[in-house]
Amino acid sequence: MLDQTIPAPSVAPGQADHPLEFIFHPRAIAIVGASSNPDGQGNGFVMGPKEHGFAGPIYPINPKAKEIAGLSAYPSVLAVPGPLDYVISSIPAAGVPELLRQCGKKGVRFVHLFTAGFRETGDRTRTALEQHILHVARQEGIRLLGPNCMGVYYPEGHLTFQPDFPREPGNIGMISQSGTNASETVSFGGARGLRFSKVFSYGNALDLNESDLVEYLATDPNTHYIGAYIEGLSEGRRFFQVLREAARRKPVVILKGGRTQAGTRAISSHTGSLAGADVVWDTACRQAGAIRVFGVEELVDILMTLASGVRPTGRRVAILGGGGGASVLAADDCNALGLEVPAFSAAVQEQLRPLVHEAGTSVRNPVDAGTLLRNEDIQKAVQIIGGSGEVDAFFVHVSSAFTVHGVGRGKTAEDAARPLKAAARLGGKPFFVVLRNEGRLQGNPENLQKLVQGCVQAGLPVFPSMSRAGNALAKVLQHATRDWEPE
Amino acid sequence: MLDQTIPAPSVAPGQADHPLEFIFHPRAIAIVGASSNPDGQGNGFVMGPKEHGFAGPIYPINPKAKEIAGLSAYPSVLAVPGPLDYVISSIPAAGVPELLRQCGKKGVRFVHLFTAGFRETGDRTRTALEQHILHVARQEGIRLLGPNCMGVYYPEGHLTFQPDFPREPGNIGMISQSGTNASETVSFGGARGLRFSKVFSYGNALDLNESDLVEYLATDPNTHYIGAYIEGLSEGRRFFQVLREAARRKPVVILKGGRTQAGTRAISSHTGSLAGADVVWDTACRQAGAIRVFGVEELVDILMTLASGVRPTGRRVAILGGGGGASVLAADDCNALGLEVPAFSAAVQEQLRPLVHEAGTSVRNPVDAGTLLRNEDIQKAVQIIGGSGEVDAFFVHVSSAFTVHGVGRGKTAEDAARPLKAAARLGGKPFFVVLRNEGRLQGNPENLQKLVQGCVQAGLPVFPSMSRAGNALAKVLQHATRDWEPE
Repeated sequence: MLDQTIPAPSVAPGQADHPLEFIFHPRAIAIVGASSNPDGQGNGFVMGPKEHGFAGPIYPINPKAKEIAGLSAYPSVLAVPGPLDYVISSIPAAGVPELLRQCGKKGVRFVHLFTAGFRETGDRTRTALEQHILHVARQEGIRLLGPNCMGVYYPEGHLTFQPDFPREPGNIGMISQSGTNASETVSFGGARGLRFSKVFSYGNALDLNESDLVEYLATDPNTHYIGAYIEGLSEGRRFFQVLREAARRKPVVILKGGRTQAGTRAISSHTGSLAGADVVWDTACRQAGAIRVFGVEELVDILMTLASGVRPTGRRVAILGGGGGASVLAADDCNALGLEVPAFSAAVQEQLRPLVHEAGTSVRNPVDAGTLLRNEDIQKAVQIIGGSGEVDAFFVHVSSAFTVHGVGRGKTAEDAARPLKAAARLGGKPFFVVLRNEGRLQGNPENLQKLVQGCVQAGLPVFPSMSRAGNALAKVLQHATRDWEPE
Repeated sequence: MLDQTIPAPSVAPGQADHPLEFIFHPRAIAIVGASSNPDGQGNGFVMGPKEHGFAGPIYPINPKAKEIAGLSAYPSVLAVPGPLDYVISSIPAAGVPELLRQCGKKGVRFVHLFTAGFRETGDRTRTALEQHILHVARQEGIRLLGPNCMGVYYPEGHLTFQPDFPREPGNIGMISQSGTNASETVSFGGARGLRFSKVFSYGNALDLNESDLVEYLATDPNTHYIGAYIEGLSEGRRFFQVLREAARRKPVVILKGGRTQAGTRAISSHTGSLAGADVVWDTACRQAGAIRVFGVEELVDILMTLASGVRPTGRRVAILGGGGGASVLAADDCNALGLEVPAFSAAVQEQLRPLVHEAGTSVRNPVDAGTLLRNEDIQKAVQIIGGSGEVDAFFVHVSSAFTVHGVGRGKTAEDAARPLKAAARLGGKPFFVVLRNEGRLQGNPENLQKLVQGCVQAGLPVFPSMSRAGNALAKVLQHATRDWEPE
C-alpha cells in the first residue's frame, strides 16, 4: 500500500515513464541469504537470473560463504563492489530492518522480501515488525515487493524466481498474491504455449499492492492480457477503479481466492488479507468487464484462449473428431455450457459425406470421424463447414484411442499438427483442439504428446477436455462484445 | 434385445451357471475380415488376443491372405480345422447374414459384430438388414454382441480389442455403448491403477443389451464394481429393475450419454438409440442407489475411489500440502463441493507446529506446508490429525512447484510414494492424493510422474486436481450409507 505523502523513488534516467518502470532495469542484483543448498529458494533466486542470462552482476550475499553457484559471495550489500539497484531478501524477518538501512546506504531502490513470518502469522509483534519495515523502507526511499512472496518473473530482462520458467518473453502480465499460484500459472500455461511479459508474486502487499501492479500492467505496452490471483485488497475502492480502467484497455482475468468460508479462513493464515464478500467480486468483475475464473487451470485456459487470438462471435459450434461415444459426450458438454451444436444443413452434410470413409459415422454435427484426423480431409471438412456460415467456432477432439491407431504416428510435432494448423486457417473461425491425455501410461503417449506440442507450437489453443474447451469459449464469448484490443 | 421365445444357447459343460458365461471360455476364436494393415481394427482384433497370450488357436479369416500377424489365415470359418466358439466380424454389413449361416454350421455360439452401418445410419434398408441378422442369429442359436461395437475385454481370459490394455485382471466390470468410451475408461483408468474383470462394448444392442450385461456383471463374482456408459435402453422397465438389483449387490456408476438436446441428436447417429428424458435417469439412479456421473474422467474418478477401498463416513476433510495459495484454492474447492474444512483444535495445532519448519505456513487446516512432503513428517502430521477424530478424510496435494524443489527427487516410484503410503495407513481415514500435472513440459515432470506411479502402485487414489478429488469424495459419500460390499 503506497502512502502518497512519501514520494516514490524517481525513474531511472532513460527508462520508460511509469514510476514503477525502474524496477525492471537493475544494473546489478543481490540475493541476501543466498545459499548453496539446491533444494532451497535461497539458491533458486541465484540460479534463476544466472541461468536465464541476466546481463549485470549477480551478488550472492552470505557472510559464511566465499562462493555460491560459481559466483563470488559477499558478506553484506555494503560490501558489493559496484552499483546495486535490486535486492532479494531471503533472511529471517528480524534482520530485515537492518538490511533495509544498508540498502538505503548502498542506493538500492527496490527490495523483494521473500522473507515471511509477518502479519500472516496472526502474531501482534510480527505484525508490528511488518509495519516497522514499511516505515524504514519509506525513510530509505525503497519500494518493497512482498513480504512473503516469490517476487518478479520478467523474462525479457532475465529475471526469474524459478530457473525452469520459459526464457522467451510473451504478452501475458500476471499478478499473484501466492507464489505457488504464480508458479503454476507460468508452468501450466508455459506447457500450453503461454509466454509472459511480467509476473509479480506480491504476497502481503505491504508496499506495492494489487492496485499498483494492475495499474502498471494496464499501461505496459508489452502486456496485452492480464491475469490476477488475489486474496484480499489493500485499497478496495481504488482497486475496483483500477480494474475498470485496466479492463477497458485489455482483457483482465480474475482468480479470487476465498470464495468460501474455508478459503477465507485459509487466506487469513496465508497473506493475512481480508477476503471480502464473494458477491462483491462477482458484481465488480461483471461491471468492470473482467472475466472471473475459479482455479489456476481455468485461469490458464482463458488466458490461452485470449492469447491465441480467439475472438468468438457466436455460440454455434461444430464438433469434429471421434469416436461416436466421445462425440455424444462432447455435444452434451457443449450444450450444457450454453453452446449450440446445430445440425448441419443437407447441403453441408452432402459435401462432407465423401470425406468420411467408415460405416457408422455421422456428418450431421458432431462429425464423429476420427479417421478425418489421420489425413488432410480434416482441412476439407473444416473449409466446407466454415464456408457454410452455419457455425461460429470449431472444436476438434482427438480421442486417445485414435492416437494409438495412427494419428501423428512417425512424424515430428510440427508434422503431426500440420493438418490441424492448416484446417484452423481454412475454417476462418475460432478453432479449439481437445487432446485428452489421461491415458498416457497406456496407449501411445508419445504420439499424443507430439500432437500437443505441435498444436502449441502452431499457436492453437489446446485443452485436455471438451468441458474445459467449451467453458473457455463460453466465458470469452460472454465478454466478446467489449473491445479487447489493447490501446 | 433378447426375444425370450427363442431359447438362449445352453451353458458349456463345466462352466459357471450364468447363461452368458459360455462367452468367456472359447476353445478358439476367429477374426473374419482380419487384415495386415496395422492401422486397422481388423488387425487389432488379431493382435489383441495374440499379444495377451490367448491360450487356444486364433484364426484370421481372409480369403486373400495366407498369413496375418504370423498366424495362418483361412478363407472362411468353415475352413478352420478345429472347433470354433467365438467369432469377431470385421466385414461389411451385407456379408453378415451369410457369415452367421456358416457360423451356425461350424457350431459357433457367439459372434461379436464390429461391423457397422445398420440402424445408426437412419437408413430403412440397413435397419431392416439389422433385424434380418437378429433373425438369422436366433435361427442358428448364436448370441450377438453389437453390431457397431468393439466387443469384449476380458484380461483373465486374454481377450482384448486393444493390445495396449493392461494384461492383469481386476474387479471393475464395465458396459459401454461406445467403443471409444470403453477404451478411454480402460486407458484413463489403467493409468491410475484400475484393473478390469470384463468390459463389454455393445454398440447397437441388437441381441445382448444393457440389461443382459449389467445382470451378468451383477452376478459375476470377480466383478465388485460396475461402470456403465449408456446411450439408450432396449428394455427400459427391465433395465431399471436390473439396475436396482445390481446396485443392491455392488456399487454401480452410470454415465448417461444424451443429457442435452445436442447429445441426444448425436446418439441417434451413433447407435440409433432413443436417449430418453434426462430427468428419468436422475430419478432412476437416485432410487436405485447408483452413482451418476457426466464424463469418462469422472467415471474413472469414482470407480477408482471405490476400488481403492475408500468408504467415507463424513464430510470433514483435512487438507495438507503446499503452498499457501494452492491451499486457499483447495479449501475453496472442497467447501464449494459441500465438504467441510474445520479449523483444527488448539491441541492439534500445537502438536503440528514443530513439524512445520518454514515461516509463513499455517497448521490450522489447510496445513500449507509443502515441505512436509519432502520427508517423513507427513506421517506424523497425518497420525496426529487422524487420532484427533476432528476429520473424516485426508487430501494431500503436491504442487508442481514442489516437485521441482525436491519431492521424489532421485528415488524410485516406490520410494517417492513411500511416505504418502505410510501416512495413508497411519491416518486411518480415506486418503486422497492430488498431483496436478499440467505443467509437465516445464519443471520436473519425471519427479511428478514417479510420484503418480508410486501412489498408483501403492493403491492410493490419485487425482489431477483438488476439485476432482473433492467431487469423488462428495459423490461416494452421498451413497456411503448403502451397503456397498459385494455379496
